[in-house]
Amino acid sequence: MPILVMKFGGTSVANLDRIHRASKRVAREVANGYDVIVIVSAMSGKTNELVGWVNETSHLYDAREYDAVVSSGEQVTAGLMSLRLQEMDVPARSWQGWQVPVKTTGVHSAARIEEIPTDNIMAKFGEGMRVAVVAGFQGIADDGRVTTLGRGGSDTTAVAFAAAFGAERCDIYTDVDGVYTTDPRISDKARKLDKIAFEEMLELASLGAKVLQTRSVELAMRYKVKLRVLSSFEEYDPEAGTLVCDEEDIVESNVVSGVAYSRDEAKMTLISVADRPGIASAIFTPLADAGVNVDMIVQNISEEGRTDMTFSCPVDQVARAEKAMSAAKEAGDINFHDIVADTDVAKVSIVGIGMRSQAGIAAKMFQVLSNEGINIKVITTSEIKLSVLIDRKYLELAVQALHDAFELEKA
Amino acid sequence: MPILVMKFGGTSVANLDRIHRASKRVAREVANGYDVIVIVSAMSGKTNELVGWVNETSHLYDAREYDAVVSSGEQVTAGLMSLRLQEMDVPARSWQGWQVPVKTTGVHSAARIEEIPTDNIMAKFGEGMRVAVVAGFQGIADDGRVTTLGRGGSDTTAVAFAAAFGAERCDIYTDVDGVYTTDPRISDKARKLDKIAFEEMLELASLGAKVLQTRSVELAMRYKVKLRVLSSFEEYDPEAGTLVCDEEDIVESNVVSGVAYSRDEAKMTLISVADRPGIASAIFTPLADAGVNVDMIVQNISEEGRTDMTFSCPVDQVARAEKAMSAAKEAGDINFHDIVADTDVAKVSIVGIGMRSQAGIAAKMFQVLSNEGINIKVITTSEIKLSVLIDRKYLELAVQALHDAFELEKA
Repeated sequence: MPILVMKFGGTSVANLDRIHRASKRVAREVANGYDVIVIVSAMSGKTNELVGWVNETSHLYDAREYDAVVSSGEQVTAGLMSLRLQEMDVPARSWQGWQVPVKTTGVHSAARIEEIPTDNIMAKFGEGMRVAVVAGFQGIADDGRVTTLGRGGSDTTAVAFAAAFGAERCDIYTDVDGVYTTDPRISDKARKLDKIAFEEMLELASLGAKVLQTRSVELAMRYKVKLRVLSSFEEYDPEAGTLVCDEEDIVESNVVSGVAYSRDEAKMTLISVADRPGIASAIFTPLADAGVNVDMIVQNISEEGRTDMTFSCPVDQVARAEKAMSAAKEAGDINFHDIVADTDVAKVSIVGIGMRSQAGIAAKMFQVLSNEGINIKVITTSEIKLSVLIDRKYLELAVQALHDAFELEKA
Repeated sequence: MPILVMKFGGTSVANLDRIHRASKRVAREVANGYDVIVIVSAMSGKTNELVGWVNETSHLYDAREYDAVVSSGEQVTAGLMSLRLQEMDVPARSWQGWQVPVKTTGVHSAARIEEIPTDNIMAKFGEGMRVAVVAGFQGIADDGRVTTLGRGGSDTTAVAFAAAFGAERCDIYTDVDGVYTTDPRISDKARKLDKIAFEEMLELASLGAKVLQTRSVELAMRYKVKLRVLSSFEEYDPEAGTLVCDEEDIVESNVVSGVAYSRDEAKMTLISVADRPGIASAIFTPLADAGVNVDMIVQNISEEGRTDMTFSCPVDQVARAEKAMSAAKEAGDINFHDIVADTDVAKVSIVGIGMRSQAGIAAKMFQVLSNEGINIKVITTSEIKLSVLIDRKYLELAVQALHDAFELEKA
């Protein structure tokens, strides 16, 4: 029988009633003729409770014990959903990560899946089991200890299972009904997309559209796993949600597919850095070591051997970045006059695979923002994306203006 | 280094503060020179919450899924206590049942421990680990699925580890400070025993003194594991609690060690049963099959080939017992005029290894009850115990009178 992977996030299994509703969707796909692998998250709130206990117990905690504690939440949901499915006369059983086994690296609390042997679960499908309910977000390391994949790792678990089992599709059930052209809370013209290319989804995911974990999209793209994002709160509809798929599977699309944003950005500038070969490495290596997620980077024109270096990072990493830069200056690794942080900026991006083949998109974007009197502070581009840093107070205005200008409300 | 097993029940690890207090006791024993194996229960309330979810999801639940869900509670405590011990600079790590592995039968939710290989944990002790924090109450079956030992199974886990590792002692930390001559809530003259023989503890445990799970005492007796029951809420005292030990280790003791009781009993009588060889088996086999825990059995003198058969069972099993007897009558397996249930009775017992060698104890017990005007409905005896069924309303009076008469307040 063809295999379908269905993933239910924390809000979709938040209580027994929702587990019941999710189970009904699973039962329907079984009736449709699929053998189903369900990946479940912990009931919403549970993981936070467990993480809270760990933090309260130990400040610099042993990540192996963190994983042992935190992985228990998914285990509970998996067992409960199996029971519910059995009540519906659907042959189901639960699997913890180590039982599959989901083999991962030993990097506790941020492990990566290395291998998912399919024989155990396939053997059970062969014996008449129709649903394997697998605890998401977890695996087992070589030394036999439980690992977790990091927050949101259940999406990645789902895609990895879909790839390993050659599933027909991987349905990600969540609390939104698909991927939108932009955040509906910001623009009431936001339109749900029926299809979106992996590359576009990847840019949207990493740009702050929190529908899918970035890593899961990467994995889906690499293994060509058809991914569907849909709501667990809507009525059943086989065409619901947004299909994330290969570019070739999308017959026609707008040049720009969506407007993404990231609200809490900061722009940092190192004033008057001595410009010499290796200076970028001297700046960004200590930042990386300090765990600062540097996003955009701009280097100004050099004058008299000195230059200004600007970069952006999440606003809550500014203190860490300043500390790392000061330390590097004291150690004599870099030299600058001053470090200036602008913590009132946001990032707005337009994304679309059509941008590759169409000129003038950037010019149009700049014009739209200029018409609204919005000053652009930093620009970065990729093949299918164009991002600008602007004052945070213009964020909503910019998103709405761009959504209108590129007519994203029209299919 | 000598090994000590310490077990903490649900109330002793009910929250982070109590886990902290329990960890301090563990750290002290490490400082005393022990390698420690800690067996933990789930934080109190957690197991009930999980069991509630299972029951709400499925009435005739799959015990394998029950075990997968319910075993998660101990796992959380084990991880948190390991983290707390590490914070105190005590090298510790958590072990789930399957990681040890605690090998059990496949009888889910009532599994029995078959083997505890010591090599994994001993190897870690060899590498400098000082505390193994093991999730109690759980194990793994041959097919790789998680099992649980039934409620209270953490006591059994603790004793089994003490036996497997040749521990010097097994300390059971609970919310009472030891084993008493009777329930202090009933008699304010109740006295804590410093020592009690395994056999006596076994009678007390199965008679309703809920300090230790019966199976754990049986196991301790078989493997000669020194068992100590003590409170996790008292100040540290190396002599605290009650030592449950071999009869030979108790130099002197009272003839009667304690007065136990069981409140919610029922007395059932089958009136005018045809008395023939095999009739007892014909009655008690269907009762056992129906899950009725028959305790006392009395067969009256036979008259004209018919007799009355009386037995006791927990009061909440009366309906089940009646149903089983009616079914057996309809099937023609047994024949009786009527079945009468007296659901207002309680059981009171005196227990003591000294009773073996001293005559007149039974007579004294009957005299004491008679003096108080308490009618005895059923009597059973063993070598070291004497139980009577009486009207429930006399329970407290009977316990107090017997405690006084045998002078149990005196050491």
